[in-house]
Parts: sequence; C-alpha cells; structure tokens
Amino acid sequence: TPYKVAVLTVSDTVASGAGPDRSGPRAVSVVNSASEKLGGAMVAATAVVSDDIPNIKGILERWSDVEKMDLILTLGGTGFTPRDVTPEATKAVIEKETPGLLHVMMHESLKVTQFAMLSRAAAGIRGSTLIINMPGNPNAVGECMEALLPVLKHALKQIKGDKREKHPRHV
Amino acid sequence: TPYKVAVLTVSDTVASGAGPDRSGPRAVSVVNSASEKLGGAMVAATAVVSDDIPNIKGILERWSDVEKMDLILTLGGTGFTPRDVTPEATKAVIEKETPGLLHVMMHESLKVTQFAMLSRAAAGIRGSTLIINMPGNPNAVGECMEALLPVLKHALKQIKGDKREKHPRHV
Amino acid sequence: TPYKVAVLTVSDTVASGAGPDRSGPRAVSVVNSASEKLGGAMVAATAVVSDDIPNIKGILERWSDVEKMDLILTLGGTGFTPRDVTPEATKAVIEKETPGLLHVMMHESLKVTQFAMLSRAAAGIRGSTLIINMPGNPNAVGECMEALLPVLKHALKQIKGDKREKHPRHV
Ligand code: NA
Repeated sequence: TPYKVAVLTVSDTVASGAGPDRSGPRAVSVVNSASEKLGGAMVAATAVVSDDIPNIKGILERWSDVEKMDLILTLGGTGFTPRDVTPEATKAVIEKETPGLLHVMMHESLKVTQFAMLSRAAAGIRGSTLIINMPGNPNAVGECMEALLPVLKHALKQIKGDKREKHPRHV
Repeated sequence: TPYKVAVLTVSDTVASGAGPDRSGPRAVSVVNSASEKLGGAMVAATAVVSDDIPNIKGILERWSDVEKMDLILTLGGTGFTPRDVTPEATKAVIEKETPGLLHVMMHESLKVTQFAMLSRAAAGIRGSTLIINMPGNPNAVGECMEALLPVLKHALKQIKGDKREKHPRHV
Repeated sequence: TPYKVAVLTVSDTVASGAGPDRSGPRAVSVVNSASEKLGGAMVAATAVVSDDIPNIKGILERWSDVEKMDLILTLGGTGFTPRDVTPEATKAVIEKETPGLLHVMMHESLKVTQFAMLSRAAAGIRGSTLIINMPGNPNAVGECMEALLPVLKHALKQIKGDKREKHPRHV
C-alpha cells in the first residue's frame, strides 16, 4: 500500500480567504512527482489552518492518530513573526525528534539563500507518523524535499517497523 | 527608531573583578560597526553577571519584558565546564527556539576552529526580543555576528511583526 | 589518571543473544587506538542493554553518578524505528545539551552517506560525565569519533572543571 502523505498549509491569510494557497498545491505536486522515490506515496489529505497552536495541534493529532497518515508536511508559520507558531505546535505533538532531517534541510536551503536561517522548522515522529515543518515560501518545499528525498523512503519504512532498513549495506 | 541591542557578559571572573571584560567591549564595537546592516541598531545597555542561572535569567527577563530590548547578545558561559550555564538560563526564558541561527553560527565558526564544537550556545525569542548566546572568546562574537549579519535585520523586523519580511523576493 | 570511558551497546538483538555485538568491540578498539589523542583514556566498562528506556536510563545514571565514568558512548537505537529510543533515554538523563558535537558528527557522517540524516543521536552532560549517542552501524562509531577527536580531550578537561581549556590560544 502506498504511503499516505498529508499536506497542511498554516497561514492566517489563506485560512481567512484573504489570499490564495500557493504553497499547498506546490507541495502536492512535489510529492506526486516524487511518488516513486518515496517508495510509493500519494497525497491523501490537504488542509489549511490559521496560525494558531490549538488548530495546528488538532489536525496533526487527528492525521497521526486517527487517519494514520505516514508523512505530514506542514507549510508555513516557521519564521520569526509573532504569528509563527508551527514549530511550537509540532514540538508539542511529536514524541521523538528527528534533528538530522532539520540539519540537512537547513544545510541545503542555505545554499539557495541565507534567509533559510530564519526557518525555525521542527520535525519528529508521533506514533508511526513523520511530521516535517517546511517554510511557507512556495520554493522552499521543493528545496527541502530534494534534500530529504534520498532517504525519506527509508525513514518511512523504519517508522513502520521495518528493521531491515536499519543498516543498509552501502553504509 | 533604531533597534535596541543589549550586551551581557557572563563571567565569574569579570563579575568578581578578578579580570577585565575583553568580550563585552568587543561586542559593543562589532554591533556599532554593523549598525547600518542591522537596520539601525545601537547598544542600549551592557552588563556583567556571574555564571549563575538566576542572575542570568533575571537580567534576560528584565531586558526583554521591561526594557524591551530588541536583541540581546550574551557572551560567555557556553562551554563544557560546570560553571557554564548560559544556555540553560537562556532556554529557561525563551519561548521559541531559533535553531537556524545556531546552525549558521556553528557552521561558520567551525571554519575558524574545531573548538567551535564546544560551544553549547542557545538562541531564541522571548516576547519581541531575540536572545543569542555567543562564546566568551573575544574573537568569537565577531565571527558569529558576521555569520548572522546578512539576515539579522530581517529577523528583528519579523519579531516586531513585520510580515512583509516573510517571503523576501529573492528567496 | 586516565579518563574512564564506558561503551553501551543498545540492541534488542544483541541483548537477547539473537545476534553478536559488532558495534561494541569496534568502539572499544577505536577508543583504545585514540587513547593518547583522548588525553589518556581507557575503556573501563562495557555493557549491552535492550532497546528499553528504563534499562538505558538506569545504566547511564549508574555509570555517571556511581561509577563516575568520564565519557559514555552509546551505540545503536538512534534510528526511526519504534524500538529506537536511545535519544529519548539520553535526553531524560542529561542536564546540559551539547549540540555542537551533534552538528559535527552529522556534518561529517553525511559526507560518508546520506543515511546519516536518519540518526536521531543526542549528546550531553550529566554531572561530570559526557554522554554521546552514536548509530549502531559498526562503521559509524569510527566516523563519529574521528569527527570529535580533535577536541574531545578538551571537552573532557572542561567537564572536570579545568577552566584553562576555555579559551585555547589558537582560537
Ligand atoms: Na545543525
């Protein structure tokens, strides 16, 4: 069965209808294009929420615990403004941190722009769901996914309990 | 109005009068030299405290909540000795972590010396104040500021709520 | 007196006797070979525990608080599978985080393989003991140690309270 990916756009502007979602559709497109590299993946859900911790937490918990999504990508709310709270909501729901993913996303994004250092993205595991924050800039999700693609499929296999993934031969 | 920067030297030696503050004045000089790149910034306060968590927390909270500093640079107390507690005091007062700033400071500092990996610096946001730990070595603050200068002004604009900063055109 | 190093293999497979410990002996060998660079270090203890938080925490606490080990290397349990809990156990026992060590290990390991980003290793200080997680892959401990060796001796000197280490002349 293909991995179920959910895409959450976090944005007051989009949630209120004051502006279009430019990030969500881009992320859906990136995931679909990478479906094979992701070990078979399909976008199973998308949503838009405002920059509010309870709203963000609520949907992350529902997608993880009830709808059993394998991978959740959040877009936006990772910056330094007062309304940027996605990392706080994410840290409140994850059980295990995944700092290596953040290291690689930061390293690769900095090659594109120094503004990448203003991302406060968090990432981690809740149950058997991997949750990764990405910046709201529509270009960022492509850059971040490209950085993770070499191993994201293996991350998803491990989360589901596949131990054969733990020591790949070429390591 | 110019951004208000505060510089805190954390050192038992300096606080007790047993040695001169070599880091504080260097930081003040670096900030003043970078005033324009920082979007207009002036050092509005400096202080020296001993390596004690309550003292460090107290001044970080006062500078943030009462004196409304925009940026606080702490110098020292980031190492591995038992008296190095600046990161712990900082993590106790910040509300949001800013890991990208730490990533860049570490990456750039490691180019200068491998000893940079012994910095346990923390950084984050409290209210509308950005707090950044830097090592006590007088050379370190110049290296760290140089690493952050390309975007520090934008970080400060965002903390004050300027949303236009969120998706700069060249990203 | 030489630094006391302890090596903990974390693995259900090894703990149950279902497989040999390939990582532990490799780590012991690496530490012994690096003894001089480590400022004089000897492996004073080794153990194997299952992937269970209470067991891992118990031995980390005993080695730190009772047997006063200077450096503890844990091997394994740092991945994305449900049984990978070494970082959680470690974060529960450390008092101070040491993110610079993690940054360097991740950076150097990524040069060898992109799978390095699947390490969720944690590291930090408990009392006067430095605890560092390493992946379970037998090749990983050599790569990680090589990344840290330039300064690990200085980290251990600082943890014991040697302040002369704080501002090495060549920084
Ligand atoms: Na990093």
